[in-house]
Parts: sequence; C-alpha cells; structure tokens
Amino acid sequence: MLRIAVCQLPLNVENHHENIDLANSAIQEAAAQGAKLVVLPELTNSGCVFRNIDELEERATTLDGALLKEWAALAYQLKVVLVAGLAIKESGCFYNVSVIIDSTGLRGCYKKVHLWNDEIDFFTPGTEPPLIVDTDIGRIATMVCYDIEFPEWVRLTMLGDATILALPINWPDTGRPSTQTPLIAVLVQAAASQNKLVIAAADRTRTERDVAWVGSSVIADSDGLIKVMADRNMLDEAQVLVVDVEVPENRKLGPRNDARTDRKPELYQKLLNK
Amino acid sequence: MLRIAVCQLPLNVENHHENIDLANSAIQEAAAQGAKLVVLPELTNSGCVFRNIDELEERATTLDGALLKEWAALAYQLKVVLVAGLAIKESGCFYNVSVIIDSTGLRGCYKKVHLWNDEIDFFTPGTEPPLIVDTDIGRIATMVCYDIEFPEWVRLTMLGDATILALPINWPDTGRPSTQTPLIAVLVQAAASQNKLVIAAADRTRTERDVAWVGSSVIADSDGLIKVMADRNMLDEAQVLVVDVEVPENRKLGPRNDARTDRKPELYQKLLNK
Repeated sequence: MLRIAVCQLPLNVENHHENIDLANSAIQEAAAQGAKLVVLPELTNSGCVFRNIDELEERATTLDGALLKEWAALAYQLKVVLVAGLAIKESGCFYNVSVIIDSTGLRGCYKKVHLWNDEIDFFTPGTEPPLIVDTDIGRIATMVCYDIEFPEWVRLTMLGDATILALPINWPDTGRPSTQTPLIAVLVQAAASQNKLVIAAADRTRTERDVAWVGSSVIADSDGLIKVMADRNMLDEAQVLVVDVEVPENRKLGPRNDARTDRKPELYQKLLNK
Repeated sequence: MLRIAVCQLPLNVENHHENIDLANSAIQEAAAQGAKLVVLPELTNSGCVFRNIDELEERATTLDGALLKEWAALAYQLKVVLVAGLAIKESGCFYNVSVIIDSTGLRGCYKKVHLWNDEIDFFTPGTEPPLIVDTDIGRIATMVCYDIEFPEWVRLTMLGDATILALPINWPDTGRPSTQTPLIAVLVQAAASQNKLVIAAADRTRTERDVAWVGSSVIADSDGLIKVMADRNMLDEAQVLVVDVEVPENRKLGPRNDARTDRKPELYQKLLNK
C-alpha cells in the first residue's frame, strides 16, 4: 500500500513567485499526512497562458537551478518522492517537463512530446519516451497532460515495467457538462485499467487570462477505479488529496487474462505501421 | 445526426432459440423508433457460458446459414444497418464474431482477436484487423468486447477512417462498486474521445450459470460523453436504447489539435517495437 498525494494548486502566471510558495506548502502538507509520493501540476513554476516568449523566459528555470536544489533538499528532509511539472530552459530551448526527485536528488526529466494548443508557439516538443525510474517506493513513470490522450504513450510505461504513473496536468475547461465524470478522469481511469497502473494526476485551478481549468486532480487504482478526486466546488483553493493505493504486483485482469501478455504486438506492428 | 440503437438483451444459453426472438423483437422496436444503426450483444445466438464444445456446436451458426439470411431480409425490409455478435462455425473452427449487415446483405465478419477467460477453450482467435465498411449511414467499424481493452486495436478503426464503432459486448460483473461508472463505459468514453469516434456498445444481461453481467450498454459521442446508458435497475428485461448522435466530420480535439495528426507514429514505431 502506497500513500500518494496529488496537489491541486491555484497557479498564477501573473505573480509566478507565489506558485512556488503554494507548491512548498502543499508538499509540506502532503508529507505531514504521510504521503510518500507527491505530485504537483504541470508548469507549476510558471503558470501556462503566456503572452509572449519573454514571459516564459522570465518564469522558466533550469535543471541545475535553485528551485530543483530546494526541492531536492525538501525531498531529502521529508523523505518523499516529488513529481512536478515545470517550464525549463535548456540549450536555448524551452521545454514543458515533468521531473522526478527523490531523497538522492533529481532522478530525471521528461520533456512533453504531445503539445496542446498554443504550447507549440513556446515549447520544443520532446522526442524521448516517458521517464521511468526506480525509487524506494516503486517504479514510477511520468509524462505530461495531453500525452495521456495518446494510449500508445501510456503503453510505454507498462512495457517499461512501471507500476505508478505520476501525471502533472493543466486540463482546460472546455465546457463539458459537469454531471459527467470530467474527461481527464475518464482517460486516467481507462489508462489505469488497460495498463494495470496506479495513476496520480495533479491538476491546476484559478482562471488565468480567460482560460479556466477543470480542476479534476484524480488518483485511480490499477482497476481503473477512482480512489479520490478533487472537489470541484473548491476551485479557488489549493487541495491536497491524499489516499492509500494498492500498487499492483502483476498485470492480471482476470483469472486467465493479463493486460500485458494478452497483447498481440506482432499483429499491431504489422497493422499500425502500414 | 444519426439515430443509433443498442439492444441490451437477457440472453439465455439454456434456451438459445429464445435469443433470436429477443433479438428480432429488439430490432423491430429499434427500427420503429427510427434507428438507422442497430447494435446487438456479443454471442447473441448462443449465450456465453458453455459447459462443453457440443453446446457451442449446437448453438453456432454459419455465415451462409438461415439466421444471416433472415437478418439480411430484416435489414432490407426495415432499412437499417445491423451489427451483431454471433458464435459461428467455419472450416471446423468456432469463432466469436461481429457481423455487419445492411440492405444489400452481409457486408463482413470480424473474428474476435483478444479472447476473454474460458473463450480460449472454445474459440479460435481471429488474426484480421477490425472490420470497417462503408454503408449508407457512414463508415462503420466493429470489434468485440474485450478487444476494446487494447487501445492499439481501437486505433486501427480511426486509422481506417471509421467514424462509428459498433461494439457487441458481454461484460462480466466483477463486483466493481456500482457508485462509479462501469469500467466498460469508461473504456468506451476514453476510446471515443481519443479517436473521435461515436461508439455504440450493446451488452447482454441475465445471470447465466453463475456468471452475472454488468448490463451497461452505452453510446458515447466523439467527445467521449455518454449519450445514453442502460438502466442498471432493469437488468432482467430487454432494453432498447435509442439516441441521436452527431457523427464527427474530422478528428479535431481543439482549435490547434487533432487526434490523428497529433500522433507521432515514427516515435511509437521506434519505441513500441523495441
């Protein structure tokens, strides 16, 4: 059983220094509640709706910058694994990334491959697969937001033997009726079940320059059941959702079925690559 | 706008002749309500929980048998496209199939590739991709039940330019808590959104030899929204669910995003085939 926290934060592109304070408070709260894995939203350090590249330049950090040193110290002190979405600059390019940090420091950085909407004007798309790292609490994969709309991408985490997928998101509110489960939660549930993964998705909130967010941070178990979901009546406040989840030991879907071995890769290869 | 019906039937392996009467009544009712596409459950002619191969032999039909002639006449008379799950025998092997029938007759037969549980003791798995046929009401794809747990398989329907996926199912009840959306509906919603497809899934009901069924026939639109779902308080009765659904004209997910062109096939090919 693993105690996981997803931190839903009211990020603010206008006053981006506040974002780190919000994140640090949420990490402290999650650790105080006993969480061993703490997931933060996409672009936690910057917000999302940039007016121009200068705004992104001003907000982006680097992989050897002060923020990641601070979080590495926090992960060590609190004995947690942190997964966070960030805007970073590297070799003159900007990337929308997710980093995995444990008590030993930065374990890796995944660059978002599938970019959403105006992100293509600001960020360079990644070309590497989802990051997967072994930690003290399990084999953790990460990707970012819209990536999960591509089931081929989630498959790589199962094929890479991950058992937990930590997913920083900024899911825009497209006016979908609120009586149904938000689409991002549906996608998380389906991906969890199809790959027998625990998935923990941390969303942002607070309308930013006319873009509203669904605010549906969610943790699903490997049967695709929702273990916890953000309260969508509290969209202006930070929410730290903490829950214990069974991490699967295999990919069994039933007594004679298995999500991994029931695949027919030779058939997919032949047909999908035509 | 297309009017679609999914027919949820209380099938019965013990008295399989009743099944066809149930199916014919449901087809008539769906047509009377103006449906142009009528979807029936998996293994409509046989039921599912066979004790031995003789039982399957007794219940299976053939592609040139009386049942398909009867349904071709019905499709012609009622001006509907029928998609139905059947047990068939061909060249000495049994297959769990889905057939598409329109006013011109049998248009094709898909043999289930991913077999569930004891099906592997009775049926030969198919080796051909999902069936996709052009009809007067649109380009319709079909596969069967557990196939939808494999997103690679659903992708083939989008890549084959289908806009509607008709899915005969028999979804066993695994005791999942009923307060959440049934997993099969979640999978249908995710697949619909990820591929911008309308998906119409017809389930069966009536506990059969100790196997219970979820009874969650569902139609989702291409945004992954549930348009109609079976009433799970009426599991002993046939339910014909009819709804009008917008058939998508493209794969757009947003102003600058597209479910098809945002894929990175060269990356998937490199990584998934390693």
